[in-house]
Amino acid sequence: MKLYTSHRAPNPRRVRWVMAEKGIEGVEIVEIDLLTGEHRTPEYRARVGVPHVPALELDDGTTISESVAICRYLEAMHPEPNLFGRDPREQAVIEMWTRRCEFYLANPIMLNVRHSHPALAALEATQLPQVAEYNRLSAEKFMRTLDRRLAEHAFIAEDRFTMADMVAVVGLDFARRIRYRPPEELTRLARWMEACRARPGAKAGV
Amino acid sequence: MKLYTSHRAPNPRRVRWVMAEKGIEGVEIVEIDLLTGEHRTPEYRARVGVPHVPALELDDGTTISESVAICRYLEAMHPEPNLFGRDPREQAVIEMWTRRCEFYLANPIMLNVRHSHPALAALEATQLPQVAEYNRLSAEKFMRTLDRRLAEHAFIAEDRFTMADMVAVVGLDFARRIRYRPPEELTRLARWMEACRARPGAKAGV
Repeated sequence: MKLYTSHRAPNPRRVRWVMAEKGIEGVEIVEIDLLTGEHRTPEYRARVGVPHVPALELDDGTTISESVAICRYLEAMHPEPNLFGRDPREQAVIEMWTRRCEFYLANPIMLNVRHSHPALAALEATQLPQVAEYNRLSAEKFMRTLDRRLAEHAFIAEDRFTMADMVAVVGLDFARRIRYRPPEELTRLARWMEACRARPGAKAGV
Repeated sequence: MKLYTSHRAPNPRRVRWVMAEKGIEGVEIVEIDLLTGEHRTPEYRARVGVPHVPALELDDGTTISESVAICRYLEAMHPEPNLFGRDPREQAVIEMWTRRCEFYLANPIMLNVRHSHPALAALEATQLPQVAEYNRLSAEKFMRTLDRRLAEHAFIAEDRFTMADMVAVVGLDFARRIRYRPPEELTRLARWMEACRARPGAKAGV
Protein backbone atom coordinates (compact mmCIF):
# COMPACT_ATOMS: atom_id res chain seq x y z
CA MET A 1 0.00 0.00 0.00
CA LYS A 2 1.00 3.61 -0.71
CA LEU A 3 -0.19 6.65 1.25
CA TYR A 4 -0.19 10.03 -0.50
CA THR A 5 0.05 12.52 2.32
CA SER A 6 1.27 15.95 3.38
CA HIS A 7 2.75 16.68 6.79
CA ARG A 8 1.36 20.25 6.63
CA ALA A 9 -2.35 19.32 6.45
CA PRO A 10 -4.72 18.07 9.17
CA ASN A 11 -6.65 15.37 7.25
CA PRO A 12 -3.54 13.33 6.42
CA ARG A 13 -2.53 13.55 10.07
CA ARG A 14 -5.69 11.58 10.99
CA VAL A 15 -4.44 8.66 8.89
CA ARG A 16 -0.89 8.84 10.25
CA TRP A 17 -2.26 8.90 13.80
CA VAL A 18 -4.45 5.82 13.18
CA MET A 19 -1.44 4.02 11.69
CA ALA A 20 0.62 4.91 14.77
CA GLU A 21 -2.13 3.81 17.24
CA LYS A 22 -2.38 0.47 15.47
CA GLY A 23 1.35 0.02 14.83
CA ILE A 24 0.77 -0.35 11.07
CA GLU A 25 4.05 -0.62 9.17
CA GLY A 26 5.10 -1.30 5.59
CA VAL A 27 3.00 1.44 3.96
CA GLU A 28 5.00 3.48 1.44
CA ILE A 29 4.69 7.19 2.30
CA VAL A 30 4.57 9.60 -0.69
CA GLU A 31 4.86 13.23 0.42
CA ILE A 32 2.75 15.67 -1.65
CA ASP A 33 3.60 19.40 -1.52
CA LEU A 34 0.29 21.27 -1.30
CA LEU A 35 1.83 24.74 -1.44
CA THR A 36 3.39 24.11 -4.87
CA GLY A 37 0.15 22.44 -6.02
CA GLU A 38 1.49 18.90 -6.42
CA HIS A 39 -2.02 17.60 -5.64
CA ARG A 40 -3.37 19.50 -8.65
CA THR A 41 -1.07 17.95 -11.29
CA PRO A 42 -2.74 15.81 -14.02
CA GLU A 43 -0.73 12.77 -12.79
CA TYR A 44 -2.04 13.08 -9.24
CA ARG A 45 -5.63 13.72 -10.35
CA ALA A 46 -5.53 10.75 -12.73
CA ARG A 47 -4.42 8.52 -9.87
CA VAL A 48 -6.70 9.79 -7.06
CA GLY A 49 -9.61 11.32 -9.01
CA VAL A 50 -9.68 14.47 -6.85
CA PRO A 51 -7.01 17.04 -5.87
CA HIS A 52 -7.01 15.93 -2.23
CA VAL A 53 -4.66 14.37 0.29
CA PRO A 54 -4.62 11.90 1.93
CA ALA A 55 -5.20 9.04 -0.52
CA LEU A 56 -4.44 5.37 0.04
CA GLU A 57 -3.49 3.21 -2.95
CA LEU A 58 -4.31 -0.45 -2.27
CA ASP A 59 -2.29 -3.29 -3.75
CA ASP A 60 -5.09 -4.04 -6.28
CA GLY A 61 -4.79 -0.48 -7.65
CA THR A 62 -7.95 0.90 -5.97
CA THR A 63 -7.30 4.38 -4.57
CA ILE A 64 -9.30 5.62 -1.56
CA SER A 65 -9.52 9.31 -0.71
CA GLU A 66 -11.42 10.80 2.28
CA SER A 67 -9.49 10.42 5.52
CA VAL A 68 -12.33 8.84 7.55
CA ALA A 69 -12.92 6.17 4.86
CA ILE A 70 -9.17 5.41 4.86
CA CYS A 71 -9.06 5.19 8.66
CA ARG A 72 -12.07 2.84 8.74
CA TYR A 73 -10.37 0.63 6.12
CA LEU A 74 -7.24 0.50 8.27
CA GLU A 75 -9.39 -0.47 11.28
CA ALA A 76 -10.93 -3.36 9.28
CA MET A 77 -7.41 -4.59 8.43
CA HIS A 78 -5.99 -3.95 11.94
CA PRO A 79 -8.87 -4.09 14.47
CA GLU A 80 -6.86 -3.29 17.63
CA PRO A 81 -6.84 -0.94 19.44
CA ASN A 82 -10.47 -0.29 18.49
CA LEU A 83 -11.24 3.29 17.35
CA PHE A 84 -14.61 2.96 15.52
CA GLY A 85 -16.64 0.87 18.00
CA ARG A 86 -17.02 -2.79 18.95
CA ASP A 87 -20.77 -3.25 18.34
CA PRO A 88 -23.48 -1.44 16.33
CA ARG A 89 -24.52 0.84 19.23
CA GLU A 90 -20.92 1.91 19.96
CA GLN A 91 -20.24 2.33 16.24
CA ALA A 92 -23.27 4.62 15.90
CA VAL A 93 -22.35 6.76 18.93
CA ILE A 94 -18.73 7.08 17.75
CA GLU A 95 -19.73 7.93 14.16
CA MET A 96 -22.25 10.51 15.42
CA TRP A 97 -19.59 12.24 17.53
CA THR A 98 -16.93 11.91 14.83
CA ARG A 99 -19.22 13.64 12.36
CA ARG A 100 -20.14 16.37 14.87
CA CYS A 101 -16.44 16.96 15.63
CA GLU A 102 -15.72 17.10 11.91
CA PHE A 103 -18.57 19.39 10.82
CA TYR A 104 -18.85 21.70 13.85
CA LEU A 105 -15.20 21.85 14.97
CA ALA A 106 -12.57 20.65 12.47
CA ASN A 107 -14.21 22.18 9.38
CA PRO A 108 -14.83 25.66 10.84
CA ILE A 109 -11.30 25.66 12.31
CA MET A 110 -9.89 24.81 8.89
CA LEU A 111 -11.86 27.68 7.32
CA ASN A 112 -10.73 30.04 10.09
CA VAL A 113 -7.08 29.14 9.42
CA ARG A 114 -7.40 29.22 5.62
CA HIS A 115 -8.99 32.67 5.78
CA SER A 116 -6.39 34.04 8.26
CA HIS A 117 -2.95 32.52 7.68
CA PRO A 118 -0.80 34.56 5.25
CA ALA A 119 0.92 31.44 3.83
CA LEU A 120 -2.45 29.86 2.98
CA ALA A 121 -3.52 32.66 0.65
CA ALA A 122 -2.20 30.31 -2.06
CA LEU A 123 -4.97 27.79 -1.23
CA GLU A 124 -7.74 30.34 -0.69
CA ALA A 125 -8.23 32.63 -3.69
CA THR A 126 -10.02 35.29 -1.61
CA GLN A 127 -9.26 35.39 2.10
CA LEU A 128 -12.12 37.07 3.97
CA PRO A 129 -11.69 38.15 7.63
CA GLN A 130 -15.49 37.86 8.14
CA VAL A 131 -15.37 34.19 7.08
CA ALA A 132 -12.47 33.58 9.48
CA GLU A 133 -14.36 35.22 12.35
CA TYR A 134 -17.70 33.51 11.64
CA ASN A 135 -15.98 30.11 11.66
CA ARG A 136 -14.00 30.85 14.83
CA LEU A 137 -17.26 31.62 16.62
CA SER A 138 -18.92 28.44 15.24
CA ALA A 139 -16.01 26.31 16.40
CA GLU A 140 -16.08 27.90 19.88
CA LYS A 141 -19.80 27.20 20.20
CA PHE A 142 -19.05 23.50 19.69
CA MET A 143 -16.02 23.66 22.03
CA ARG A 144 -18.47 24.64 24.78
CA THR A 145 -20.67 21.63 23.89
CA LEU A 146 -17.62 19.39 24.18
CA ASP A 147 -16.56 20.98 27.47
CA ARG A 148 -19.99 20.11 28.95
CA ARG A 149 -19.81 16.57 27.55
CA LEU A 150 -16.29 16.11 28.99
CA ALA A 151 -17.54 16.99 32.47
CA GLU A 152 -19.13 13.52 32.55
CA HIS A 153 -16.90 11.51 30.22
CA ALA A 154 -13.13 11.00 30.00
CA PHE A 155 -13.34 11.10 26.20
CA ILE A 156 -15.91 12.41 23.73
CA ALA A 157 -17.86 9.39 22.46
CA GLU A 158 -17.01 6.57 24.88
CA ASP A 159 -14.89 6.31 28.01
CA ARG A 160 -11.83 5.55 25.90
CA PHE A 161 -9.97 7.32 23.07
CA THR A 162 -11.82 6.90 19.74
CA MET A 163 -11.90 8.35 16.23
CA ALA A 164 -14.11 11.20 17.51
CA ASP A 165 -11.37 12.44 19.90
CA MET A 166 -8.76 12.16 17.21
CA VAL A 167 -10.72 14.20 14.66
CA ALA A 168 -11.41 16.86 17.32
CA VAL A 169 -7.85 17.22 18.58
CA VAL A 170 -6.35 17.22 15.07
CA GLY A 171 -8.76 20.04 14.27
CA LEU A 172 -7.83 22.00 17.40
CA ASP A 173 -4.11 21.49 16.77
CA PHE A 174 -4.44 22.92 13.27
CA ALA A 175 -5.55 26.22 14.84
CA ARG A 176 -2.07 26.50 16.40
CA ARG A 177 -0.89 27.68 12.97
CA ILE A 178 -2.60 30.99 13.69
CA ARG A 179 -1.56 30.86 17.39
CA TYR A 180 -5.18 30.24 18.36
CA ARG A 181 -5.96 28.82 21.82
CA PRO A 182 -9.44 27.67 23.00
CA PRO A 183 -11.16 29.88 25.62
CA GLU A 184 -9.37 29.38 28.97
CA GLU A 185 -12.55 28.74 30.95
CA LEU A 186 -13.05 25.43 29.08
CA THR A 187 -11.01 23.49 31.62
CA ARG A 188 -12.49 20.03 30.84
CA LEU A 189 -11.65 20.57 27.18
CA ALA A 190 -8.08 21.50 28.19
CA ARG A 191 -7.71 18.39 30.39
CA TRP A 192 -9.00 16.11 27.59
CA MET A 193 -6.82 17.81 24.94
CA GLU A 194 -3.74 17.21 27.11
CA ALA A 195 -4.66 13.51 27.50
CA CYS A 196 -5.03 13.11 23.71
CA ARG A 197 -1.81 14.98 22.92
CA ALA A 198 0.11 12.79 25.37
CA ARG A 199 -0.60 9.68 23.25
CA PRO A 200 2.42 8.49 21.26
CA GLY A 201 0.30 8.50 18.07
CA ALA A 202 -0.24 12.26 18.40
CA LYS A 203 3.26 12.90 17.08
CA ALA A 204 2.75 11.00 13.81
CA GLY A 205 2.50 13.00 10.60
CA VAL A 206 2.94 16.41 12.22
CA MET B 1 -37.13 2.37 18.53
CA LYS B 2 -38.37 5.91 17.81
CA LEU B 3 -37.38 8.05 14.84
CA TYR B 4 -37.62 11.83 15.18
CA THR B 5 -38.00 13.02 11.62
CA SER B 6 -39.45 15.71 9.35
CA HIS B 7 -40.92 14.99 5.93
CA ARG B 8 -39.76 18.41 4.69
CA ALA B 9 -36.00 17.87 5.17
CA PRO B 10 -33.53 15.84 3.10
CA ASN B 11 -31.45 14.21 5.87
CA PRO B 12 -34.44 12.45 7.47
CA ARG B 13 -35.39 11.19 4.01
CA ARG B 14 -32.10 9.25 3.89
CA VAL B 15 -33.18 7.26 6.96
CA ARG B 16 -36.72 6.67 5.68
CA TRP B 17 -35.30 5.48 2.35
CA VAL B 18 -32.92 3.00 4.05
CA MET B 19 -35.81 1.71 6.18
CA ALA B 20 -37.89 1.20 3.01
CA GLU B 21 -35.03 -0.56 1.12
CA LYS B 22 -34.59 -2.95 4.02
CA GLY B 23 -38.28 -3.36 4.83
CA ILE B 24 -37.73 -2.23 8.45
CA GLU B 25 -41.01 -1.97 10.34
CA GLY B 26 -42.07 -1.30 13.92
CA VAL B 27 -40.18 1.99 14.35
CA GLU B 28 -42.34 4.68 15.94
CA ILE B 29 -42.27 7.81 13.74
CA VAL B 30 -42.34 11.16 15.57
CA GLU B 31 -42.87 14.07 13.16
CA ILE B 32 -40.97 17.26 14.12
CA ASP B 33 -42.07 20.58 12.58
CA LEU B 34 -38.89 22.46 11.62
CA LEU B 35 -40.66 25.60 10.44
CA THR B 36 -42.22 26.21 13.86
CA GLY B 37 -38.89 25.35 15.53
CA GLU B 38 -39.99 22.14 17.27
CA HIS B 39 -36.38 20.88 16.99
CA ARG B 40 -35.20 23.87 19.04
CA THR B 41 -37.42 23.30 22.09
CA PRO B 42 -35.66 22.48 25.40
CA GLU B 43 -37.43 19.07 25.45
CA TYR B 44 -36.10 18.09 22.04
CA ARG B 45 -32.56 19.35 22.77
CA ALA B 46 -32.53 17.53 26.12
CA ARG B 47 -33.43 14.29 24.34
CA VAL B 48 -31.21 14.54 21.24
CA GLY B 49 -28.43 16.88 22.40
CA VAL B 50 -28.56 18.97 19.21
CA PRO B 51 -31.37 20.79 17.36
CA HIS B 52 -31.23 18.37 14.42
CA VAL B 53 -33.46 15.81 12.71
CA PRO B 54 -33.29 12.90 12.14
CA ALA B 55 -32.55 11.25 15.48
CA LEU B 56 -33.05 7.61 16.39
CA GLU B 57 -33.88 6.69 19.97
CA LEU B 58 -32.83 3.11 20.74
CA ASP B 59 -34.67 0.91 23.23
CA ASP B 60 -31.84 1.37 25.80
CA GLY B 61 -32.40 5.16 25.71
CA THR B 62 -29.33 6.02 23.59
CA THR B 63 -30.20 8.65 20.99
CA ILE B 64 -28.26 8.78 17.71
CA SER B 65 -28.27 11.87 15.52
CA GLU B 66 -26.43 12.22 12.17
CA SER B 67 -28.30 10.52 9.34
CA VAL B 68 -25.34 8.48 8.03
CA ALA B 69 -24.60 7.09 11.52
CA ILE B 70 -28.29 6.13 11.86
CA CYS B 71 -28.32 4.47 8.43
CA ARG B 72 -25.16 2.48 9.22
CA TYR B 73 -26.74 1.33 12.50
CA LEU B 74 -29.84 0.16 10.60
CA GLU B 75 -27.57 -1.72 8.17
CA ALA B 76 -25.86 -3.52 11.08
CA MET B 77 -29.30 -4.58 12.38
CA HIS B 78 -30.73 -5.43 8.92
CA PRO B 79 -27.82 -6.32 6.61
CA GLU B 80 -29.83 -6.94 3.40
CA PRO B 81 -29.97 -5.45 0.83
CA ASN B 82 -26.42 -4.24 1.41
CA LEU B 83 -25.91 -0.46 1.08
CA PHE B 84 -22.56 0.17 2.85
CA GLY B 85 -20.34 -2.57 1.32
CA ARG B 86 -19.69 -6.27 1.83
CA ASP B 87 -15.94 -6.22 2.53
CA PRO B 88 -13.41 -3.60 3.66
CA ARG B 89 -12.47 -2.55 0.10
CA GLU B 90 -16.12 -2.06 -0.94
CA GLN B 91 -16.89 -0.31 2.34
CA ALA B 92 -14.03 2.13 1.76
CA VAL B 93 -15.04 2.89 -1.84
CA ILE B 94 -18.69 3.39 -0.83
CA GLU B 95 -17.80 5.61 2.15
CA MET B 96 -15.45 7.68 -0.04
CA TRP B 97 -18.20 8.30 -2.63
CA THR B 98 -20.86 8.83 0.05
CA ARG B 99 -18.70 11.53 1.63
CA ARG B 100 -17.95 13.15 -1.74
CA CYS B 101 -21.68 13.15 -2.62
CA GLU B 102 -22.46 14.63 0.77
CA PHE B 103 -19.79 17.36 0.88
CA TYR B 104 -19.62 18.34 -2.81
CA LEU B 105 -23.25 17.82 -3.86
CA ALA B 106 -25.83 17.49 -1.05
CA ASN B 107 -24.34 20.21 1.20
CA PRO B 108 -23.93 22.89 -1.49
CA ILE B 109 -27.44 22.09 -2.82
CA MET B 110 -28.82 22.51 0.70
CA LEU B 111 -27.08 25.90 1.02
CA ASN B 112 -28.31 26.94 -2.41
CA VAL B 113 -31.91 26.12 -1.42
CA ARG B 114 -31.65 27.67 2.05
CA HIS B 115 -30.30 30.88 0.59
CA SER B 116 -32.93 31.03 -2.20
CA HIS B 117 -36.27 29.64 -1.04
CA PRO B 118 -38.60 32.32 0.45
CA ALA B 119 -40.14 29.86 2.96
CA LEU B 120 -36.68 28.95 4.32
CA ALA B 121 -35.81 32.49 5.39
CA ALA B 122 -37.01 31.29 8.82
CA LEU B 123 -34.09 28.82 8.97
CA GLU B 124 -31.47 31.13 7.46
CA ALA B 125 -31.19 34.43 9.34
CA THR B 126 -29.55 36.19 6.38
CA GLN B 127 -30.24 34.81 2.93
CA LEU B 128 -27.48 35.82 0.53
CA PRO B 129 -27.94 35.40 -3.25
CA GLN B 130 -24.12 35.19 -3.66
CA VAL B 131 -24.01 32.22 -1.28
CA ALA B 132 -26.83 30.54 -3.24
CA GLU B 133 -25.00 31.08 -6.54
CA TYR B 134 -21.57 29.99 -5.26
CA ASN B 135 -23.07 26.75 -3.97
CA ARG B 136 -25.05 26.08 -7.15
CA LEU B 137 -21.81 26.33 -9.13
CA SER B 138 -19.96 24.05 -6.67
CA ALA B 139 -22.71 21.44 -6.89
CA GLU B 140 -22.70 21.59 -10.72
CA LYS B 141 -18.95 21.05 -10.79
CA PHE B 142 -19.43 17.80 -8.89
CA MET B 143 -22.46 16.84 -11.07
CA ARG B 144 -20.03 16.87 -14.02
CA THR B 145 -17.64 14.61 -12.07
CA LEU B 146 -20.54 12.21 -11.44
CA ASP B 147 -21.64 12.34 -15.09
CA ARG B 148 -18.13 11.21 -16.16
CA ARG B 149 -18.11 8.47 -13.51
CA LEU B 150 -21.55 7.25 -14.62
CA ALA B 151 -20.32 6.83 -18.20
CA GLU B 152 -18.49 3.71 -16.97
CA HIS B 153 -20.63 2.59 -14.00
CA ALA B 154 -24.36 1.95 -13.58
CA PHE B 155 -24.20 3.51 -10.10
CA ILE B 156 -21.77 5.84 -8.35
CA ALA B 157 -19.63 3.67 -6.06
CA GLU B 158 -20.25 0.09 -7.19
CA ASP B 159 -22.31 -1.50 -9.97
CA ARG B 160 -25.34 -1.58 -7.69
CA PHE B 161 -27.37 0.99 -5.73
CA THR B 162 -25.55 1.99 -2.50
CA MET B 163 -25.60 4.67 0.18
CA ALA B 164 -23.59 6.98 -2.12
CA ASP B 165 -26.35 7.01 -4.76
CA MET B 166 -28.99 7.61 -2.14
CA VAL B 167 -27.21 10.59 -0.59
CA ALA B 168 -26.66 12.08 -4.06
CA VAL B 169 -30.23 11.69 -5.34
CA VAL B 170 -31.78 12.92 -2.07
CA GLY B 171 -29.56 16.00 -2.44
CA LEU B 172 -30.58 16.53 -6.06
CA ASP B 173 -34.28 16.06 -5.24
CA PHE B 174 -34.09 18.74 -2.54
CA ALA B 175 -33.18 21.25 -5.28
CA ARG B 176 -36.63 20.69 -6.81
CA ARG B 177 -37.95 22.99 -4.06
CA ILE B 178 -36.46 25.90 -6.00
CA ARG B 179 -37.42 24.29 -9.36
CA TYR B 180 -33.76 23.58 -10.07
CA ARG B 181 -32.85 21.01 -12.74
CA PRO B 182 -29.28 19.73 -13.42
CA PRO B 183 -27.66 20.88 -16.69
CA GLU B 184 -29.36 19.02 -19.58
CA GLU B 185 -26.12 17.89 -21.21
CA LEU B 186 -25.41 15.60 -18.22
CA THR B 187 -27.27 12.69 -19.81
CA ARG B 188 -25.58 9.91 -17.81
CA LEU B 189 -26.51 11.74 -14.60
CA ALA B 190 -30.12 11.98 -15.86
CA ARG B 191 -30.26 8.22 -16.70
CA TRP B 192 -28.84 7.31 -13.26
CA MET B 193 -31.18 9.74 -11.43
CA GLU B 194 -34.19 8.14 -13.16
CA ALA B 195 -33.02 4.64 -12.13
CA CYS B 196 -32.68 5.75 -8.48
CA ARG B 197 -36.03 7.56 -8.43
CA ALA B 198 -37.77 4.45 -9.81
CA ARG B 199 -36.88 2.47 -6.69
CA PRO B 200 -39.83 1.93 -4.34
CA GLY B 201 -37.74 3.30 -1.42
CA ALA B 202 -37.46 6.68 -3.16
CA LYS B 203 -41.02 7.53 -2.15
CA ALA B 204 -40.43 7.05 1.60
CA GLY B 205 -40.32 10.12 3.83
CA VAL B 206 -40.99 12.62 1.04
